[in-house]
This record gives sequence, structure tokens and C-alpha cells, in this order.
Amino acid sequence: MSYGGYGGGYGTPPPSGGYGAPPASGGYGAHPPSGGYGATPPSYGAQRGPGGFNAPPPAGPPPGADPQLWNWFAAVDADRSGSISVFELEKALVNGDWTPFDLDTVKLLMSIFDTDRSGTITFNEFAGLWKYIKDWQNVFRHFDRDRSGSVDSGELQEALRQFGFNLSPPLLALVEKKYDVFKATGVAGPGQREPGISFDRFVRCCVVIKQLSESFQRLDTDRDGWIQINYDQFMSTVLSLP
Amino acid sequence: MSYGGYGGGYGTPPPSGGYGAPPASGGYGAHPPSGGYGATPPSYGAQRGPGGFNAPPPAGPPPGADPQLWNWFAAVDADRSGSISVFELEKALVNGDWTPFDLDTVKLLMSIFDTDRSGTITFNEFAGLWKYIKDWQNVFRHFDRDRSGSVDSGELQEALRQFGFNLSPPLLALVEKKYDVFKATGVAGPGQREPGISFDRFVRCCVVIKQLSESFQRLDTDRDGWIQINYDQFMSTVLSLP
Repeated sequence: MSYGGYGGGYGTPPPSGGYGAPPASGGYGAHPPSGGYGATPPSYGAQRGPGGFNAPPPAGPPPGADPQLWNWFAAVDADRSGSISVFELEKALVNGDWTPFDLDTVKLLMSIFDTDRSGTITFNEFAGLWKYIKDWQNVFRHFDRDRSGSVDSGELQEALRQFGFNLSPPLLALVEKKYDVFKATGVAGPGQREPGISFDRFVRCCVVIKQLSESFQRLDTDRDGWIQINYDQFMSTVLSLP
Repeated sequence: MSYGGYGGGYGTPPPSGGYGAPPASGGYGAHPPSGGYGATPPSYGAQRGPGGFNAPPPAGPPPGADPQLWNWFAAVDADRSGSISVFELEKALVNGDWTPFDLDTVKLLMSIFDTDRSGTITFNEFAGLWKYIKDWQNVFRHFDRDRSGSVDSGELQEALRQFGFNLSPPLLALVEKKYDVFKATGVAGPGQREPGISFDRFVRCCVVIKQLSESFQRLDTDRDGWIQINYDQFMSTVLSLP
């Protein structure tokens, strides 16, 4: 699936990194993860046994597990069930300004990493989720040029442009209004939320724009920039968005 | 603007109540508000003076104000600024199971009732917001037939059908997956969130489906159930949703 350059011409080659799917950590000048967390090799996924649905709580980390990653998993797994529910994840994830992730972003993450559709995240699935968040943090930090902890209008535009989405100014304004709480309201909260787009909404924004653009491109079989779509297709395209 | 019966034929007359816009409180067998709160006459809106942007904090309620409504307004206005920010509103709104409203639902409410686009809700705007929530609560209670505090699959289907949206079973499944946190995850949180669709997500769900259906209908000028749409129209339609 390609998703290059809508608005910038259909023939544009797709960017080298895959965003929406876990972003390439080396893309767009982002730094590689500085700590050992994100450096976990992808072998966790291979170590999973069959099943894992309602497995008894593990007594300890699986062999070869990153101890730090295991500790964080155990901390998030508040009820010690051996896996993480959407509610445990919701409580664990915070933005740089300590505001919680939107439930829809938590659901987005669950939908990507709950690969066995058990409704919970096992330790092996958690390793992928952890890396995904670390990679997005690097992307976010890269585009948050003024280190404000949030992405402003110009930074968002540059991010989307580098991802291959050359949105028109009115579309960019709509994106900002949707994902930046302050753009919609015009006032700053007293020490509660930073102006600009928070980390979790930035991730959701990028995934939504990528998914929408890909949906449009799939439907635009003759590549003329127009699609014909019926009510059911239209509704299902939109209702499938995170 | 009409929004009748997509999937059930374009010629279907629109339902008698206007949903998405403040729902008609008497519609669909919903009971009238039992307390005095919702009974506030709509004259508040007419009492507004010109301006109101950054007005000094009022010393007390405007003449004729419902004292109970004023008290609630004052409680939500935590910083005593005389108007309510999106963050103050976010802290004040909870579902029946005490979970907070999603930020996107709070933004939706702000966008409807911040009529002077000041970024905050004045007392007069608050009166409209209060009535809107009360009306939606009545609608929600009407469709929550088993009084579980949330709307399940069958209840949602019946609500959408009565609103004039006869969605196909696959679309209904998508709607549920999007707005019911449990449908997406399959597990119940320990005493945190009820299974089914919470009040605030039910409101957002109904407003989104209404807005999408209206957008489609506006574009379907020849009423054949198909629209032709370019990338910018497609993106702006979706990004304008709450």
C-alpha cells in the first residue's frame, strides 16, 4: 500500500518511513531511542507460545525479557492478571503535560497491538506497543522544534508534509481545529493543557490522515483525484477511523 | 436541512425531532425533565447584552436566572472568571458510571454553545448547554431500556432507526466498535466503565452519524445513493466531524 503525496500528485514516491504503521525510528532525522527500552529486539513476538488467552498470571518475565520493560509491564498490569486491559493502559499513558491520553488513542493502540484479539495486551504484545510509542515520541520530539512539549501549527504542517501529505491551508486549519484543543477554544487552561497538539492527539491525527488518504487512493482507481462512493462505503470508511 | 432515512430511502420524511442539533425533549417517548433545571425557559439567550467577550466576572446571577442553574455554573467555573473554559467543563462532566466525558465530546459541546466564539461559555450560553445535556439524557434514558446506564447493541440500533438512520448490520457493527469501548476490547474493566456505549459517546455517535449522513445527502444532488467527491472535499467532510 502506498500513500504518497496526495495534493502533491499521485506519482510522488511514498516517504521512506511507514507512519501509522509503526513509524521507522530512523526516519525524518529522528534520533534513535536513547535508552535501552526501545532497543529491545523484536524477538519477543517469536517467543510467544500458542494461545495466551486467559493464561494464568506469569510468575515472572519470560526468558530473555528486558527487565526494565518487564517492570513497566508489571506496573501497568495493576490487577496482576498477567495482561493489560484497555483501562489499565488508559491509566498508564500520559502526555508530556501529564494530561491523560484520549480513550480513542488508547483504543487505537489496543487495536494495533492486541494481535491475538484477546481484548488485552500480553507482555509480548506490550513490547511492540512500547517500541511503537518510543518511535512516535522520537518523531514527535523531532517535529516539536521549539521543545514546547506540543506541536504547533507550523510544526504540524512540516510533519504532514514530510510524511507526504501536502494538505491545502483550509484542510490544515481543519486538522488543527480537530486535534489542537486550543485552536477550537481559543483559551489556555490554567496549567492543565499546553497550547498546540499533545503527543497522543498528534499520533491519532497522523494515523487518521494516513488511513483516510490510503482509503481515498484505493477508491481512486483511475488516479484522477475524484472518487465515486456510495453511502455504505462512505460511512464505513469514516467509521473505521480511530 | 433534512436527514431522513439513508439506507431506508431518500424520500423518507425526517424524524420529528432534531437530533444533533438539540434533540426535541418530547420526542420518542422521552419524559420531560423531572426537575426544574431543564424547565428553564429559553429567554436566557435573549437576555444577553452585546459583546460579553472578556466581560468582568459577574457579581451574581443575571436578573431572572434560575438559582439552581446559577449555582451549578458557579461550581463549574472553578477559577471564578465568570465563564467556563473547555478544561473547567471537562472536569465537570461525568457519565453515569463516573467516567469523564471524552475531550472530543467536551469540544463538541463547546463548539455548539460557545455561540460568540469567545472560547468560553458564559452563563447564558451555559443555560443552552445545560438544556441540551438534559434533553440528551432523556433520549439516552429512553433508549437504555434495561436501565443499565449504557446503551447496548440492540438499544443503539433502535435509537439510530428511530432517528431515521437505517444502517446496515456491518455499519452498525462498525459504529459499536467505534463508540463502545468494550466491543473493541472484549473485556470489562473492574468497576471502571460499564459495558456498552456511555452517555457522552452516545451523544457523539449520534451527532457524527447525523452530520455524515447530511454531508452525503448534500453531495448526492441527484439522489441516486452515489456521490462523486475529490480528495479535498473528502478530507474536509471527515475532518469537520466531532
